[in-house]
Amino acid sequence: MRKVTTFLSFMAMLLMSIAPLSAQQNLWHRVDVVSPEVNADGSVTLRYFAPTAQCVEVTGDFLPERTITTADGSFTAPGVAPLTRLDNGVWEYRSEPLRSELYNYSFRVDDLSGLHDPASSYFMRDINSQMNYFIIPGERGNLYMAQDVAHGTVARVWCDAGDRPRRMSVYTPAGYESGKGRYPVLYLLHGMGGDEEAWLATGRMAEIMDNLIAEGKAEPMIVVMTNGCTKHVAAPGYSHEGMWVPYGSGSMDGSFETLFPDVVKWVDKHYRTIARKSSRAICGLSMGGFHSMQISKEYPALFDYVGLFSAAIFRGDNNIALYDNLEQKLAAQFAAAPKLYWIAIGASDFLYEDNVRFRALLDSKGYPYTYVESEGGHVWRNWRCYLAEFVPQLFKR
Amino acid sequence: MRKVTTFLSFMAMLLMSIAPLSAQQNLWHRVDVVSPEVNADGSVTLRYFAPTAQCVEVTGDFLPERTITTADGSFTAPGVAPLTRLDNGVWEYRSEPLRSELYNYSFRVDDLSGLHDPASSYFMRDINSQMNYFIIPGERGNLYMAQDVAHGTVARVWCDAGDRPRRMSVYTPAGYESGKGRYPVLYLLHGMGGDEEAWLATGRMAEIMDNLIAEGKAEPMIVVMTNGCTKHVAAPGYSHEGMWVPYGSGSMDGSFETLFPDVVKWVDKHYRTIARKSSRAICGLSMGGFHSMQISKEYPALFDYVGLFSAAIFRGDNNIALYDNLEQKLAAQFAAAPKLYWIAIGASDFLYEDNVRFRALLDSKGYPYTYVESEGGHVWRNWRCYLAEFVPQLFKR
Repeated sequence: MRKVTTFLSFMAMLLMSIAPLSAQQNLWHRVDVVSPEVNADGSVTLRYFAPTAQCVEVTGDFLPERTITTADGSFTAPGVAPLTRLDNGVWEYRSEPLRSELYNYSFRVDDLSGLHDPASSYFMRDINSQMNYFIIPGERGNLYMAQDVAHGTVARVWCDAGDRPRRMSVYTPAGYESGKGRYPVLYLLHGMGGDEEAWLATGRMAEIMDNLIAEGKAEPMIVVMTNGCTKHVAAPGYSHEGMWVPYGSGSMDGSFETLFPDVVKWVDKHYRTIARKSSRAICGLSMGGFHSMQISKEYPALFDYVGLFSAAIFRGDNNIALYDNLEQKLAAQFAAAPKLYWIAIGASDFLYEDNVRFRALLDSKGYPYTYVESEGGHVWRNWRCYLAEFVPQLFKR
Repeated sequence: MRKVTTFLSFMAMLLMSIAPLSAQQNLWHRVDVVSPEVNADGSVTLRYFAPTAQCVEVTGDFLPERTITTADGSFTAPGVAPLTRLDNGVWEYRSEPLRSELYNYSFRVDDLSGLHDPASSYFMRDINSQMNYFIIPGERGNLYMAQDVAHGTVARVWCDAGDRPRRMSVYTPAGYESGKGRYPVLYLLHGMGGDEEAWLATGRMAEIMDNLIAEGKAEPMIVVMTNGCTKHVAAPGYSHEGMWVPYGSGSMDGSFETLFPDVVKWVDKHYRTIARKSSRAICGLSMGGFHSMQISKEYPALFDYVGLFSAAIFRGDNNIALYDNLEQKLAAQFAAAPKLYWIAIGASDFLYEDNVRFRALLDSKGYPYTYVESEGGHVWRNWRCYLAEFVPQLFKR
């Protein structure tokens, strides 16, 4: 039978037929513009097609931070850099060589900000923002990139602990499915407004775990990522409660902590876990650090490893019984001698002073903990680093 | 211990601190603008903040199609509708009441097209495009929404059939993990440029399967979604081969078909499958329909159920041995009497004539098949419908 078209003409027809959401010029612009382009010298080139724009800028965490002052105080924000217009209507920016890292960016065209890069399918959602990203190879960037190593499995499962089924993400290490062994478990919690997708998308946890395990730096372990917003059963798009907006949703009312022992029981029942305190860890960022602190002190028999990443230590709702008697409960927890109590925060994090106060409390009682202070603020760059630093210490004591 | 701040002040600080990629005004615009808003009458309201824009438009598959004529011929594209500027710099559009469906959209501001909705975290990637979406409830829309029913598990696993490990997505139905039963398997293939994420994100397959199974319309089954682009081992972001651009990548050179029996063996080994022809189905869209046709005729003992969705029937590369002798191989396949050979295509699909020719070939030989012709073209709306129509027919004959 004769082939009526060549592959190339098939592609041309396909390109036209799958123009579902773009004017034609936009369709072709996707084909023409390469962005991001990571260069051999460790710089990145970003491009944006905007033929009649007056000004195109990029903002991202690879640029020096700015300080912005408002009536509510000062805060830092990522820097901004201009793109240069080329003759064909494409604007271009080339950075200096960058330190190896995963970086985020978005564009600003005239007065429209937060624009995604239409040439790239490399993006991640954090809460209600979609951000493009690129990775500069090297020591740190390589940790966040998929490598040619054995990969774990990532599953979205529905856990029916508590009042109703909730969606969660579970990482099982390479070899779990084909073997029969039992594994320790890390419970890895997200921040305010995040969900069970956060550590996978923006946290790059599967790549970090695969790489650390392949290098022999971390024990093979199961990692469970719950959804800590008990108002919702799942991340946007996966809940039967309609199109809820994640921004600002969170649970610091004791409800998440209360159901946690049932989550642990469910995991121990459904996975081949080593179901004992010395093979269980809990850590989280921001609200998830708060949750980790609360859960580990509320149930001192559950976790021997605790990690607080930029933890929102004193930020729970008022008049929640579970949050009362903190000192007394910490006393019980530390009497049971956890093997590792690990606290990390950036020097410019807005929760820094809370953590100073919390450490002062621990110091006053003589409770042992490890403290890591990094540069920077309340940002994923730090949380990825903290995870990569915390995980190699687990289940070895 | 005194709580130093209220929850609300924590949120305000958090909102400022997590402004990683946006100028501040953009951050607050995310909080202020609600979009999309699905109204009680089945219409949708979309909003976009663009205070100094001259013209803001929306394009999407809920608007009447336009015909665009170029030097290469005519093709259809989604319609365009203008938004109206409100006093606060927000532009707004309210549709007519819409038929129940999942719809895509993107914005155009002056000469920038393909802009995502920064107020929404409801988006899906198709090949290299990111599209926002909304769902109008009702008979069809409800099928694509998570419902309060038992949910299956969705896993991303690495299959080491063939020359190197490749990532694939596997849906296991509710009850699989906690039970011991064996299940039939559907192999569900994507199109040119797609990957192992396509049917989950844009195809809404997990919601469709959960809902059809919960309603008793479909048998509980395992669904395996491979990556049919053998040049790459995984979707963008999950491959060690760097930041490759999915646009146009595909495999119609026999390589994917050749490794498929090993994929089936791998699945039969790693999952509790019913490992026989009468409990195996294969279907796919566009290139995946081509693959389904090629694989099912090449290995006539493997599949009793075959579905070709807008299949790119005659579009394989030239001079590929596996694609030769089609008539002879179809004769062997139909001699083995598959239980269902199902062909569906839209009346305005650019591959329509290919499918007419293919059906003429089947007719000339007297091979039995089922044919469904829908409205519309080479679009996901059709492929979701075809999946929902095909799956209830599986494993019942």
